[in-house]
Amino acid sequence: MELFDAIHSQRAIRRFSDEPVPDELVRKILDAAIRAPSGGNRQPWSFIVVTDTDVKLELGRFYKESWDQGGLSKMASDADPSTARVYTSAQYLAERMGEAPVLVLACIETGGGDTTITTGSSIYPAVQNLMLAARGLGLGTVLTTIHKGREAEVKALLGIPANLETAALIPMGFPGEGERFGPTRRVPVDKVAHRDRWGGAL
Amino acid sequence: MELFDAIHSQRAIRRFSDEPVPDELVRKILDAAIRAPSGGNRQPWSFIVVTDTDVKLELGRFYKESWDQGGLSKMASDADPSTARVYTSAQYLAERMGEAPVLVLACIETGGGDTTITTGSSIYPAVQNLMLAARGLGLGTVLTTIHKGREAEVKALLGIPANLETAALIPMGFPGEGERFGPTRRVPVDKVAHRDRWGGAL
Repeated sequence: MELFDAIHSQRAIRRFSDEPVPDELVRKILDAAIRAPSGGNRQPWSFIVVTDTDVKLELGRFYKESWDQGGLSKMASDADPSTARVYTSAQYLAERMGEAPVLVLACIETGGGDTTITTGSSIYPAVQNLMLAARGLGLGTVLTTIHKGREAEVKALLGIPANLETAALIPMGFPGEGERFGPTRRVPVDKVAHRDRWGGAL
Repeated sequence: MELFDAIHSQRAIRRFSDEPVPDELVRKILDAAIRAPSGGNRQPWSFIVVTDTDVKLELGRFYKESWDQGGLSKMASDADPSTARVYTSAQYLAERMGEAPVLVLACIETGGGDTTITTGSSIYPAVQNLMLAARGLGLGTVLTTIHKGREAEVKALLGIPANLETAALIPMGFPGEGERFGPTRRVPVDKVAHRDRWGGAL
């Protein structure tokens, strides 16, 4: 698949078919993930690929608890139409996270200290590579972070060491009924890009 | 360019040729950046494309000050050989950041509050798309965050509103003398991926 076609047709997929994901595709996707840059090329990432039914369901339970606790199901009904569509779909996922064919938990070694926005610069590029590679192989994904509301429980469940923090939980599978890849709707470039200083026309 | 070829040959490029970057390529690259996912599809990103010589040099000065203050030039001489290579190249960039043909500052609307690692999940996927798209068009980039040591000065210079935070400063240009695209060296997948729980063989 051509690079720009992949980029322009990547789209959040939250409903998956039951078709299993071959291990060799998972491996190819992870091998794409680790090609991403990281600060000082330290490669502080780890990926836990969860395919065991019980572990997936347990993760899904934590995800749903965190979703409910964050009041996100309420937001699904209160938001404006465009946002509401996202939340309705996200609500669907929150109820079925544990049923996705594969769950990938992306983690980053932080040393256990405080994190800031730039901590993410050494893990989310890898997550984006992962999702683009999945798209290139016909697999749907979506980047979620709601499980962070159950960070301790998730780490305990999977035996993740204290010096790591979880960064994203990514369900993966072939797109289910009614799902499609891109195109996506975005605020156009001219509205979000500036020349030389804030407000300068591109 | 094929997706996996782009992913596997993306590499930090820190030396640029003097050849100017056509505006239509910058626009195509930004149009790829904004296809990335963001939390609730809020698209909290802004991109400042700096090509004005004086503004670039001023940004480069802040970057170099922050580099020096962080003791990073010292690290360049102290590190192990593999890390030292990265730092030597990064030192070169720190001294010439303002001379890159284009500097892109990626910003994210945060409301001015505290940020955590997951704040980055709504900006670094876009930054990664930007860098992959650049690669696909033959342009080199590197993800840097060192300017964060001069966050207030950088925001004042570019007139960036208080409710935004800068996330990455990305120099961009055609690769200079001695630079090349991929392949990259990485710790292999089997060392960083786990099946079902920490330590499980993939």
